[in-house]
Order: sequence, then C-alpha cells, then structure tokens
Amino acid sequence: MRKFNRKNFETREISIQKNFVENSDGSCLICFGKTMVICTAIIENDVPSWLKGKGTGWVTAEYGMLPGSTSSRNRRESKLGKQTGRTTEIQRLIGRSLRSIIDLNCLGEKSIIVDCDVIQADGGTRTASITGGFVALSLAIKEYISSNRSIQDPIKDYVAAISCGIVKNEVLVDLDYSEDSIADVDANFVITQKSGFSEVQATGEENTFQKDELLDMMEKVELVSEKIFAIQKDVLE
Amino acid sequence: MRKFNRKNFETREISIQKNFVENSDGSCLICFGKTMVICTAIIENDVPSWLKGKGTGWVTAEYGMLPGSTSSRNRRESKLGKQTGRTTEIQRLIGRSLRSIIDLNCLGEKSIIVDCDVIQADGGTRTASITGGFVALSLAIKEYISSNRSIQDPIKDYVAAISCGIVKNEVLVDLDYSEDSIADVDANFVITQKSGFSEVQATGEENTFQKDELLDMMEKVELVSEKIFAIQKDVLE
Amino acid sequence: MRKFNRKNFETREISIQKNFVENSDGSCLICFGKTMVICTAIIENDVPSWLKGKGTGWVTAEYGMLPGSTSSRNRRESKLGKQTGRTTEIQRLIGRSLRSIIDLNCLGEKSIIVDCDVIQADGGTRTASITGGFVALSLAIKEYISSNRSIQDPIKDYVAAISCGIVKNEVLVDLDYSEDSIADVDANFVITQKSGFSEVQATGEENTFQKDELLDMMEKVELVSEKIFAIQKDVLE
Amino acid sequence: MRKFNRKNFETREISIQKNFVENSDGSCLICFGKTMVICTAIIENDVPSWLKGKGTGWVTAEYGMLPGSTSSRNRRESKLGKQTGRTTEIQRLIGRSLRSIIDLNCLGEKSIIVDCDVIQADGGTRTASITGGFVALSLAIKEYISSNRSIQDPIKDYVAAISCGIVKNEVLVDLDYSEDSIADVDANFVITQKSGFSEVQATGEENTFQKDELLDMMEKVELVSEKIFAIQKDVLE
Amino acid sequence: MRKFNRKNFETREISIQKNFVENSDGSCLICFGKTMVICTAIIENDVPSWLKGKGTGWVTAEYGMLPGSTSSRNRRESKLGKQTGRTTEIQRLIGRSLRSIIDLNCLGEKSIIVDCDVIQADGGTRTASITGGFVALSLAIKEYISSNRSIQDPIKDYVAAISCGIVKNEVLVDLDYSEDSIADVDANFVITQKSGFSEVQATGEENTFQKDELLDMMEKVELVSEKIFAIQKDVLE
Amino acid sequence: MRKFNRKNFETREISIQKNFVENSDGSCLICFGKTMVICTAIIENDVPSWLKGKGTGWVTAEYGMLPGSTSSRNRRESKLGKQTGRTTEIQRLIGRSLRSIIDLNCLGEKSIIVDCDVIQADGGTRTASITGGFVALSLAIKEYISSNRSIQDPIKDYVAAISCGIVKNEVLVDLDYSEDSIADVDANFVITQKSGFSEVQATGEENTFQKDELLDMMEKVELVSEKIFAIQKDVLE
Repeated sequence: MRKFNRKNFETREISIQKNFVENSDGSCLICFGKTMVICTAIIENDVPSWLKGKGTGWVTAEYGMLPGSTSSRNRRESKLGKQTGRTTEIQRLIGRSLRSIIDLNCLGEKSIIVDCDVIQADGGTRTASITGGFVALSLAIKEYISSNRSIQDPIKDYVAAISCGIVKNEVLVDLDYSEDSIADVDANFVITQKSGFSEVQATGEENTFQKDELLDMMEKVELVSEKIFAIQKDVLE
Repeated sequence: MRKFNRKNFETREISIQKNFVENSDGSCLICFGKTMVICTAIIENDVPSWLKGKGTGWVTAEYGMLPGSTSSRNRRESKLGKQTGRTTEIQRLIGRSLRSIIDLNCLGEKSIIVDCDVIQADGGTRTASITGGFVALSLAIKEYISSNRSIQDPIKDYVAAISCGIVKNEVLVDLDYSEDSIADVDANFVITQKSGFSEVQATGEENTFQKDELLDMMEKVELVSEKIFAIQKDVLE
Repeated sequence: MRKFNRKNFETREISIQKNFVENSDGSCLICFGKTMVICTAIIENDVPSWLKGKGTGWVTAEYGMLPGSTSSRNRRESKLGKQTGRTTEIQRLIGRSLRSIIDLNCLGEKSIIVDCDVIQADGGTRTASITGGFVALSLAIKEYISSNRSIQDPIKDYVAAISCGIVKNEVLVDLDYSEDSIADVDANFVITQKSGFSEVQATGEENTFQKDELLDMMEKVELVSEKIFAIQKDVLE
Repeated sequence: MRKFNRKNFETREISIQKNFVENSDGSCLICFGKTMVICTAIIENDVPSWLKGKGTGWVTAEYGMLPGSTSSRNRRESKLGKQTGRTTEIQRLIGRSLRSIIDLNCLGEKSIIVDCDVIQADGGTRTASITGGFVALSLAIKEYISSNRSIQDPIKDYVAAISCGIVKNEVLVDLDYSEDSIADVDANFVITQKSGFSEVQATGEENTFQKDELLDMMEKVELVSEKIFAIQKDVLE
Repeated sequence: MRKFNRKNFETREISIQKNFVENSDGSCLICFGKTMVICTAIIENDVPSWLKGKGTGWVTAEYGMLPGSTSSRNRRESKLGKQTGRTTEIQRLIGRSLRSIIDLNCLGEKSIIVDCDVIQADGGTRTASITGGFVALSLAIKEYISSNRSIQDPIKDYVAAISCGIVKNEVLVDLDYSEDSIADVDANFVITQKSGFSEVQATGEENTFQKDELLDMMEKVELVSEKIFAIQKDVLE
Repeated sequence: MRKFNRKNFETREISIQKNFVENSDGSCLICFGKTMVICTAIIENDVPSWLKGKGTGWVTAEYGMLPGSTSSRNRRESKLGKQTGRTTEIQRLIGRSLRSIIDLNCLGEKSIIVDCDVIQADGGTRTASITGGFVALSLAIKEYISSNRSIQDPIKDYVAAISCGIVKNEVLVDLDYSEDSIADVDANFVITQKSGFSEVQATGEENTFQKDELLDMMEKVELVSEKIFAIQKDVLE
C-alpha cells in the first residue's frame, strides 16, 4: 500500500505557488507532496560565447539542493568546491527539457537561466524541477513580453516531467523517497503536451528491464501528464 | 521618507514561520520585509577534528544566496568553485553569534550546523540569518531534548541581530537595499537579551564616523531588540 | 546514403584487441569504425568508505578523452581543474551498466575500477566504452580467478551498448559523428544478453519523439546486440 | 602583569623600516613587538572590470601569512588551493580601511594593490597590516607623483589600526598572542587622524560585552593613535 | 645482467607507428620497450596572450598518464582537480625541448600543442614523449605545409631524448622501471642532431655524482642518439 | 661589463642573517645581491602517509614569491587557487637538494619542512633558496639536538647551489635578472662540499650547448662553491 492510499498511477498532491519570490523575472514554489523546489527564471542580455553573433538565444538551467533539504545534511557544494556528477547531470537534463519547447530564434541574443533549488527532498526533485522550471520560465517570458518589449512568444508547447519505477514488480508513478530507494527500475520521463516525449531515462542499476515494461510506463506517463499540464495552465492563465 | 512610512527606528515587518521544511531537525522561514531566509539546523554526532576527545560540542553556520534571490542574478558559488569572501565572512559571523549564547559543554560531542539560505535579498540578510538561525537552532535542540535524549539545555540566552546605518546624517534601523546602497556608515549589531552585545561591526567604507554616532546606534538597537526577542519567543514557546 | 554503404541497422566495423596494455589487470583497445577507446580494469583491495565492513565489493568507471582525440583539440580536464558535466555523466552511466551484470557480493571487499580513455572520437564513445569496458573487466576477473585466488565468478551476464538516432526520419544504428551531429533524436541503449535492458536514454534536444519510435529503436538494438555479444565472446573465450 | 612591564594602554614597540624591498613602488617592514609584516604597494594601469570607463581608480589589499610565521607551521594557502575565510576577511578589512582615506577620483583609472605578508605572527597582524599598508601606499603615491606624473595627491588623511581586548576584566591595548588567546572580548579599531573611526569590529566569541566597555576601548584607541600617527609621519616626511 | 641481454649502452627496442590516430594534425605511437606513449600535435590559429601581435608563433606540450598505464592504478588528475608537480615539470621540459629546434618566427601567429599521453609506463616516459613528440610535431607541420598553406618550414634540426642512470656504479642507458627504481643517479638528456644538447638534467636524490660521471653519460648519449635520429628519419621521410 | 664591476666568475655579495624570524625552529634571511629569501625550517612529529611505520624521517620544501617581490606584481598563488608549474618544479628541486645531504634514518618519524619565500627577486631565487634552506635546516636540527632530544645528527655534508649561464658566448656565474633574461643557456648546479654534485640542470631554451661548455661551468661552480660553504659555516658555527 502506498502512503496516503495513493494508487499506483496517481501522483502525490501537486501545488504551484507563483511569484514566490519577486526579485527574479519569474518564479514559483512547486511541491510534489513533501518535495519542495523554488524555481526562478532570469533573463540576461547576453548569450554564451559560442552563440554570439548568431542572432539566437539560449535557455539553460542550474540545480542545487539546500543543505537542510535532506534528513542527513547534504554537504554544500560551494564548500566542496564543485558540483557533484549527480547535480550536473540533473541540470543538463532540465536545460534540455526546457529547450525542447522553446524556439530559441524568437529570443534574440538573450539567455534565460532557470534555477531550481530544492528546499525539501522526498523523491522526484528533478521532475518537480522541470515541471516548475517551465512555469518560472513562462512567467518570465510573459512578463517580458507584456512590458512592451517586442519579442515573439518563443514557447511552442507545455513540458512536464514525471518519475516512474518498478517496485516489487509493480509500476508506480511519482515515487517518493521511501519507494525510490527500494525500486528495481527507476525512470524519468519528460513529456510535452502536443508533440510527444522530450526525454526518456530508464535505469535498472543492478537490475534490468524489458521493452514491454518501458512501454507500460510510457503509457501511464501519458495519462498522468494531462493532469499536470492542467495545473500548470491554471497557474499561467 | 522611508518606504511604508517607516520611522527611523522602526524595523520592517518581521515574520517567522517555524518548521517551514521538515527534513531538518529545526527550521524556519524568516522575513524582514522582502528579505527572506530559510534557516535550518541539523544535529550531527560528530565534532571537528580539533575538538575530538574533548567532550565538548560545536555550533557552526553556513550561508548562501540562491541565484534568483537578487534582481541581477547572483552567480552560483558551487559553479564558481568557491565561496566568496563576503559569504565566508557572513557565515563566520553567524557561527560566532550563535555560539555566544550556547554552552558547548552541554552538547557532548555533537555538532549543530545552522544553514541560512537567502531566497530573496533586500538588505539585512546577515541579520535576518542570525535572528532566524537562533530560532532554527532552538527548535532543533528542543526537539532533541524532547525525544528523551538526555542532554542539558545548552541555550543560555536569546540572540538576535539588527542592522543600522547613517543615511544623509540620520541613523536608520534595519536598512533595506535601497537605503543600504546609499548609506555612509553601515553597521551590524548582534545582541543578546540578558547579557549585552555579542558582536559590533561598523564600517564607513570611504567614510568615517564618530564615537557618539556608534553609541547612538547601540542605544537604538537595544530598544528595537526587545521587539525582536518577543517575536522569537512567540514562535518558540 | 551512410558512409561505407552501411545499412540503417548495421553497426560500423567493430574490433577488440585484448591485452592492448599489460600493466593493468585486464585491458583492450576497442574500435567502432574510427572511434577508438582504451579500456583497462584494475582490482584494488579496498572499497569506498560507505561500503567498508559490509563484505561486498564495488565496480566503478572513469572516462576521459585525450586532447588529440578530436579534430579541434579537446582541452585537458586536468588543466581545467575538473571533469566536465558530460564526462561525469558518461562515467556514471558506464559504472551503472557494468554493475548491472556483476554480483558485487562475490567480490568480497574489493573494488574494480574500469578506465575508458578515448584516443579517437567519431561518435559513440560511451557505447564503445561500455562494450569494451565489459571486456576489460571480464579479463581482469578471469585473470584474478585463474591466479588461484578464491572468489566466485561475479559475472552474471554479458553487457554491451549501442547508440541509435533518428536522422531525417529514419532510425539509424551506431551513428558516427557526422550523423550524430544532425540527428533529431539521440538515444543510447545498454543491453544484456540474457535479461533485457540495463539502461535506456533517449533525448530529443529541441525535438520530441513518440512511443513507437522508441519501441522501434529498442527492437533494432536487440537484433544488433547479438552480433556484438559474439565479438565479445570471441575475445573472451 | 603584561610582558616587558607594559601598561594596559601601552602598545608594544612599533618600528617601521621603509623601502625594505625595492622592486615594488612602495614598501615597508612594520613590527609591533615580535609581529612582523612586509607591506608593499604596486600601482597598475588598470581597474577591475566593474570600474572600467568610469574615470576613477581603485585601492585593494591582499593578506597572507608565511608558513614559518607561526610556531606550529601555518599551511601554505596556495597548496590548499584557496584562501581561508580568515584571510579573505582580513584582506577585505585592510582594503576598506585604506580606501577610507583615499580620494579614488584623483587616481584616474589606476589600481593600487597593497600586499601585507606576515613574516612573524604574535597577535595584531591585521592592525599592523593596516598601519604599515598605509605607509607602503603613501610611499608608492609619493614616488609616483614625484616622477612628474600628473595626478593630484589622493591621500586625504592618515589611517592606522589598533587592537583592544578585555582580559580578566581589564581593557588592554595591542594584545600579543598570549593575551589574545585568553581574551574574553576581542576588538579591532581602524582610526583616521582627522575624521574619526573608519571601522570598528568587536566580538565576544562565547562572551558578550556592554556599550560602556566598547566606549572605553574607543577612548583608549583615540589616545594611543596619536603616537602611531607620529611614527608614520616620521617615516613619510 | 640487463633484461633481454641488453648491453649497458644499448636502448630498448624503439618503434614509432605514425598516424596512429587521424583526427589530430600529426600523431604517432612511440614505444621504448614496454613504455608506450601516444603523441599528437594540433595546430591552432591563436597564440598565448603575451605573444599576441608579435607576429611569432608558439609550441607547447602537455603530458599525462592514463590511469591504467601503471600496475598500481595512477589516479586520474582531472579527478584530483589538478596536475601534479611531476606532470607540470615533465610537460614544461617537453615544450622547451621542442622549441629548441623550431624557428617560432616561421609559424606566424599560430600555436602547436603537442600532447603526450602515456598508455603504458615502464621507465623513460618523458624521453619517449620528447622523441615521439618531435615526430608528431614534424608530421603536423609537413601536412600543414603540403596543404599549400604558405609558411616556411620552421624545423631547424632533429631532437630526441635519452635517459641515463648510474646503477651499482655502472652507467646504463635507457633505464626501464626496474632499473630506474634502484638507480643512484638519474639523468635525462635532450639532444639535437646538429647542434648539441638542448637540456641536461641529472639528479642524485640522496646521492651525489662527479663531473666525470656526467661527462661519461653525455658521451654515451651522443653515440646512442644517432640510432634514434635514424628511426625518426625513417618515419618522417 | 657586469654591474658592480663583477668578474665573470664572481658571485654577487652574499649575506646570511640567521634567526631572522624566531617562531620557526630555524630561520635565516639570505641575500644574493638584491635577491632576498626568507628560509624557515619547522620540525613536525609526523611523516607523509607512504612513510608511516618505516622508522625513517622526511625532509621537504615549499617555495613561494611574495606578490611585491617583482617589479611587475607577481599574482598571489593562493588567489589563483594553485601553485604554478614553475613553483612546484623549484620546490621539488629544493627538497631533493636538501635530502641529498641528510641521513633520513637518523630523524626517526619526523618531518622537516623548509619554506623558502622570496621577498625580492633579482635572479637566482632557487639557488639562494637551496643555499639558505640548508642554513635554516641546520639551525633547526642543531636547536633540536641541543634541547636534549636524542637524535643523531643527520647532516652528512654541506650543500649550496649556484646558477651559471652563457651570455654572449661567455660563461657567467650567479646571474642577476638583467643577465638571466638575455642568457642563451641557463644552468643551475647543486653541489656538496665533500662528495660532488647533487643536481645539474642546464637548459638552452631555443638554443643548444656543447659538452665542453657544461664541463666549463661545472669547474667554475666547484671553485665558487668554496666561498659559499665558508659563508654558511660562518653562520652555523
């Protein structure tokens, strides 16, 4: 039995509080159950050096976990002197996911940096980051356009992410930490509303899985995603 | 005229939301106006190497600012590969301030790490961190003692911090960013409820100040501190 | 038309030269067309600190690219002072893939470190690393067991990896660099001989893909994998 | 009783040997008793990027301790790979102190870097650094002006620094290491000759102090500072 | 008796396989017995900042050892976060040696970077790197000139390097690891074909040596060098 | 003509001021003309991990240049975050040179760290460091033995170092910076009083040299070394 009587294909309660902080161009606090992530988006009049002069923009993401976000304290990466491999892997995933629904040409030579900082971790921090990162990014762009600054809306689609896993031979959606830590297979899906999947990552560390199991998870994700897009839309419109 | 009709000796609205996150041993979200800081405290069964075997505990602090906490994005220190001088200076101050009201001998060989992460910055982040850090620390200790674990209460006093500055020849209390950036003298006071000041730092970068001006600020701080201790007490009792 | 008249589901020529270097416990030079990777495995009588005293072993991997492996010189990571995000992501994938076919309990408190160093890069360096890393690992274990040292063979299965992509709406297997750089979807599959997939990673940076397309790729990978397992077996037996 | 029969309000013997090294634009060896610091100032035709094009100059400071300056060897920061928090805190203080008596507009787009390297540490290294740093800075500027290079003298005032502490309930001036290590309150004052204090830092790690005690220290510092300004003047004129 | 019946003044078998990798501008795999080094050279249209605008070029070298190149695994420097002192010392030596036979003025504002990566280490890796680095450099320049790009041939002479040592009072040439680790004196000679020595480094860690012994080694090196220049010429012509 | 009418085989004025700082176990300020180096030696009751339990000691050295030691400011390595290749190369040389005259077995499991910090650089800083490092090391050992601590004197011989160079076809001894920067060949010799050379390093960056030229320099060094040993002896006895 899952906590709170959750069914296998049911997500935890998802909430998105927009403009949680006001200094950045767009922001939200997103919660998947106890997992809490602050997402902010800031627009800068600059692009990475390899894009300069090409007339196109850039969207990138950074990810972090506050030291107090986990029960056993998570060491501060700035003191370690570097981001861990897990961190860089996650922030690269967030960046790719957001770029999959943005037309970078509409931005002109601007960068949008989306920061996802986990303030409480209970499984699914990367999927919450992508889902909330999209909201922060959209709010920043909306506000930019509404300030009379003439760019074309670069947002082509909605994007969200959902985790799945196989726990004791059952496919579960949106695993919390207690489920995640005993899962045989662990997968993350980034999905758009109109045009399919942007990213699939399935891993069975010390285990393996079959084609059919992956297919099964993808179908569950398609169903669940509609609910998440509705929550995003609710906040954005 | 100060924003919101504030008088010179009036702080911004201060709020403390306790247990803002639940994974750590004690936590709060503290706000001084628009300045918002998440403070968490975690107790570890270990002490720094130079204290091992001495039977005494340790309290330390770490400080950070989320990239989206400022209007112009604050670069992530974990990507820079190090904490800036400003960061280390502030976290050393927070640690000293908290240790000034703790009897480390009561802790046994345990460490308490207080993390103060600024999620929105509008001046006074270090004073908010000390004031909120004390609450997170107290909550963690309370909860530790109430779980039947036999340590003596190490908390000897209340501690809070307040900024002051001289702006256009007037002493102002609790400066926001717009005031701080034009102040001639910038000072931070860490004060305990029963036994006096724990730390005074006054600086007049490119300016100087007189003995009397510092004395004046200390008097204002003593007055204002009572209000802050009341807010802390309200949360803790 | 693919170079060398390759069909869409055909890999490049794959060769594995075992014991390419002799100082390590097991090694090979693996080539997928022009992509060349030196894989070495070294057994150490030690485990990471979080495994000490648990009676189990560990398998991990590290990955690097020589500066001269690419046409435009690849900056040396030891001079940059850190491994890039791409590097850590790849070495974590190699490690997980190899652990998926190893029974760590058989190893006792030993670590096996598999190093995969790309000496020429023409697409598919991570899949070549996994495929060759398995050979180096197997050779090291064989040689360890044959030296009369009593551990049970920890190798449960064969493992290999293959890249796929969608280029101009066609699914291609084992992309070289010229194909990879224009692919709409880029995927890597880690597959075992007997028990299914160990890892699936599909990404459509700036694009998306459908369930069916992923399924199609997985079927192609299953077919092709048999040929690769045969090459590995040929070297190992 | 203090060593060498020192009275509570008496400094140790202070000596300043100017032009101790000749390669830099200005230099001195300053001694407060056994504490010895080499201060050098170098003028560069460049300003930090955030000042470029503003027509104003910059003064900054760096601080270090030689490994052999302490009885128990002080680890070399270049080998640690970073400056400690204590170091950055001190060098920021020295920089602010020197800028408080310089009119940066007179400099044009030039930077003056003052390096303070402790060759023997016996308490009060930061106050000796500020006091000697002022001399090195002044010598560099004098020599620059006398070389017929037309800048207006940017030096507005003299600046020096003095430490104070409360040891066994007595206020002592200019503590040596043996006194500093048992002090209940530890304070540093940066004072100018004509216009008051530039910086006050008082801390009671694990202790607290009263308004009156701080006031008392400030009065003592004002008295003692006259003697130090005289020594500086003697060297500079 | 030396391994393989080698005489004291005989090198191990030396082989050079040119164009071992094809992505770089010039490359070879050089072997001195079991010591194997991949040398690559890449030409870049840029010079270090201190050479910009001077119309002259630059030749530099970098050196590394693969983790699997030694029996006991050599820790990866990119994970350590820096190159060791031994590595920087060797790569500086390689760079100086190659520059001694290059007329940098002929290059125009171009840099040639020679990377020497040891894939198996059995003594003499720095001498093999210089000897093979010269071949990679020459191949890159040849190929650059033959592509109709008008620079004058900057190569003035041949250069090679040979190690010598004193083991049990006998001068040995080209020591392998087993000899090197018991040598009383350890020396490396970089020699050109036409104009003498480019570098001599002789060290007797915990031992000393006489003028005559060094002279003796230099004579042996002159004799042996002819054979090595012939091997290089064979590859290059 | 050399400055100060120096003959080709004449060193600059050499002075050694012992116990220049008192906190370390042994120290001196050594000057070769305008080149000034502070050398300190500290004895620690510990050895590097690879020597633990072997009953033998260790001698090592570290080298640095103060930022103000050069006319154009030398950037502080602790701010760069690492020691440069030049620095590590020099400190490894100093360490080897000192170990060549020490019987490490006499030390027991102790380390002696010799720090050489250049306060003014005018050529020959490494040779001054070795020559002065020997004095600091000897003073520390003397003082250790005289404190009734029973170790056998580990010092077997005197050691000093001298630079030579070929400038406009003439062999010059002890080059100052103006000579060094135009030298065709640059060499450093470490020599002991009783048993010969400990290290020879000769380099002709962009030039080459003959056997006879090196021999000539070695003879000059032997002559000059007697004078330097006399100065060392004078200080030590």
